[in-house]
Amino acid sequence: MSYFDSASAAPLHPVARQALQASFDEGWADPARLYREGRRARLLLDAAREAAAEAVGCRPDELVFTTSGTRAVHSGIEGALAGRRRVGHHLIVSAVEHSSVLHSADLHEAAGGAVTRVQVDRAGRVSPSSYAGALGPGTALACLQSANHEVGTEQPVAEVARLCREAGVPLLVDAAQSLGWGRVEGDWSLLTASAHKWGGPAGVGLLVVRKGVRFAPQGPADERESGRAAGFENVPAIVAAAASLRAVQAEAAQEAARLRELTERIRTRVPTLVPDVEVVGDAVRRLPGIVTFSCLYVDGETLLHELDRAGFSVSSGSSCTSSTLTPSHVLKAMGVLSEGNVRVSLPPGTGEEDVERFLSVLPGVVSGVREKLGAPTAVTKVPASVDALVVDALGRRCPIPVIELAKVIGDVPLGGTVRVLSDDEAARLDIPAWCEMRGQEYVGEEPAEHGSAYVVRRLA
Amino acid sequence: MSYFDSASAAPLHPVARQALQASFDEGWADPARLYREGRRARLLLDAAREAAAEAVGCRPDELVFTTSGTRAVHSGIEGALAGRRRVGHHLIVSAVEHSSVLHSADLHEAAGGAVTRVQVDRAGRVSPSSYAGALGPGTALACLQSANHEVGTEQPVAEVARLCREAGVPLLVDAAQSLGWGRVEGDWSLLTASAHKWGGPAGVGLLVVRKGVRFAPQGPADERESGRAAGFENVPAIVAAAASLRAVQAEAAQEAARLRELTERIRTRVPTLVPDVEVVGDAVRRLPGIVTFSCLYVDGETLLHELDRAGFSVSSGSSCTSSTLTPSHVLKAMGVLSEGNVRVSLPPGTGEEDVERFLSVLPGVVSGVREKLGAPTAVTKVPASVDALVVDALGRRCPIPVIELAKVIGDVPLGGTVRVLSDDEAARLDIPAWCEMRGQEYVGEEPAEHGSAYVVRRLA
Repeated sequence: MSYFDSASAAPLHPVARQALQASFDEGWADPARLYREGRRARLLLDAAREAAAEAVGCRPDELVFTTSGTRAVHSGIEGALAGRRRVGHHLIVSAVEHSSVLHSADLHEAAGGAVTRVQVDRAGRVSPSSYAGALGPGTALACLQSANHEVGTEQPVAEVARLCREAGVPLLVDAAQSLGWGRVEGDWSLLTASAHKWGGPAGVGLLVVRKGVRFAPQGPADERESGRAAGFENVPAIVAAAASLRAVQAEAAQEAARLRELTERIRTRVPTLVPDVEVVGDAVRRLPGIVTFSCLYVDGETLLHELDRAGFSVSSGSSCTSSTLTPSHVLKAMGVLSEGNVRVSLPPGTGEEDVERFLSVLPGVVSGVREKLGAPTAVTKVPASVDALVVDALGRRCPIPVIELAKVIGDVPLGGTVRVLSDDEAARLDIPAWCEMRGQEYVGEEPAEHGSAYVVRRLA
Repeated sequence: MSYFDSASAAPLHPVARQALQASFDEGWADPARLYREGRRARLLLDAAREAAAEAVGCRPDELVFTTSGTRAVHSGIEGALAGRRRVGHHLIVSAVEHSSVLHSADLHEAAGGAVTRVQVDRAGRVSPSSYAGALGPGTALACLQSANHEVGTEQPVAEVARLCREAGVPLLVDAAQSLGWGRVEGDWSLLTASAHKWGGPAGVGLLVVRKGVRFAPQGPADERESGRAAGFENVPAIVAAAASLRAVQAEAAQEAARLRELTERIRTRVPTLVPDVEVVGDAVRRLPGIVTFSCLYVDGETLLHELDRAGFSVSSGSSCTSSTLTPSHVLKAMGVLSEGNVRVSLPPGTGEEDVERFLSVLPGVVSGVREKLGAPTAVTKVPASVDALVVDALGRRCPIPVIELAKVIGDVPLGGTVRVLSDDEAARLDIPAWCEMRGQEYVGEEPAEHGSAYVVRRLA
């Protein structure tokens, strides 16, 4: 069994487990109480705060423990926006942030705020100049992840932080994916993170607010955690989170080099082993353990299922694996293929042999899925004008529209067009991506009676 | 060492510890994922939800796990208020709710909502007719605790629930203190609870919303826990919370009888062992493990400190033990003495010998504190009209104003009055309470140049 989804959650680190065991006995009481059990819990909490602050690179009184990374993001964004209400109501986020950031932005917008969603390049990276261009006199807050959770691309946080600082705007960095690998560089103002991403227990997030940043906690008053995280402190889990953060950071340099080599193997060998694959994300400025690729003519759910049967746990940004039937917003923003998408995120300690086994198993799994889907399907070729073929893929889900397009492209005369009728959300992303991969021209999308018509011109 | 503060937090139940150990291995992955580790976590989460729902007496799909009791209350109140926004903006709470309820009410009021705070009798109990009187056509929600956290008084939840149901108003019951003892009776609409009160781990609360109750979750969208509790689910802690809830409920009937007898000993014997003590809270309709009393002429912080030195961990609603220097809102609403306040809350399994040792130690501890405070203090007796003595206790903190009053009452002619000048918030509560205990007449409070003048007429 190989668990390759540490970007979702990592198994409990041995140090975290030991710390939990010890602090169940020592840290269960209310740290606000004056008696000895309370004082003991307080000591543990204070020590954990110091350890976490040291790992983050901030003062202990700038850091509070929340109940999750999501909660840290929600509280951080709403507190920073409220603290700068008088400056304005403009929020900047990147288009590839974690959903907790994007949903906070949606809520802000619904409440009358203004939101700029900074676009990314095909590698999933923002340009500092886009942030600079978005900053204005009414900007209350900017948010940027340290690295992307789906494709591993690192963002230019230090540079964006400098630009924000010059404009007098605080920058909130969602460091959920990177903090275990080391401190976030640059002069950021707020930072959030999540312990279960680095092998700490679930139920612990970090919210750091630098001294001098205007911050107004929202929600009902609560005296715990400087008024920034309501509810009884989970001291044992906090102790374990801090201890494991220090442990993984201590191992980070060595482990990063090892995992980077392993993910590099996947990056370079998958396209040679599996035809019609697009590896996505920045090839160089990336997290050590994440590699993501998409396979043409494959449906993500079946692929994940087959990989699970073969003993590999990975995740996918394909539409068919989500309940909403829309492809991942990250792949969408990058404009890359989403069908047959696989994210491999290796936990520290992953062995070379596990990766080799994955590389040996993957080609057969993908071709098996393709074979299943390649079976003849009922497609109506509607007679049309001399140079315009129409493929009716209405009611068919990803990856069928692209498969049908690929089947008929040979029938289209060079320079002629084919119209693919589809009501599947993923087609909007995957047909242009297929054109790019195949050297065909994507002409554009037109409204149709049902769904849309995607027009493709044959060039090759 | 005797830990007598289980109403704050209970040590981890052995069943909770076992469940945690097991589910660290089985339940750390993301339950939303399709691979085997995710499916295993999902199975554990589903089973825990069923067990908790069974213990609460609701359907599994009516129950979500939050990250604390406080969070359950915050989310429950704001979601129910938002869901009934069209009905009106009126919220009813009792004056003795947990601070998470009262702070939610304060926030609602600050945002333009109307709040009725239903008063309690001297035992800390609301009358159903007060709730009936408060219900109106614009009432969106009513809240009532199942039992009070500071004095143990049980509230008439079933009757209030019936009245609310007749008025078409949902009732939210904060069951934090009672759920370990059994289901909450009556036709309530929403229920909240907190696992660390029953020996579950910190980091888990319950929010139950009955089918048919209008509920609109607030805050940024999040797909977890039916959209009602944002953030990665803490599956191991949830499993442990559910398992320990079942375990303590199974032991509840037997343990309740035992603890009730032990707290009854404290209720009846403390007043015979320690002079000038008021036992507070309902003598009959109360939780099994909680007993609360206040000692005249004693400051709560010193008392707690001395009890801690003697090996007893208890808490206090006295002003001097809180950072705000105001007495507990519960004691205030009850109109009982707050100085030298002690809450004893026995965890399940407390031995008879621990309670006997407490009863043997307490008298010496109290008299020691009184001796220290009884030392002569600089009090100015200002010459005044023939029947009016003035005690200047300005700048002196609880319990000094009451001690000075007690010292001079003998100098006041029968029928004459004494004015106590005090700027201590606790005096407003403790001087009338002293009069009631001593058979003197509390005439009232008058504004003074500094602080207030509390006027007392000598009757005895």
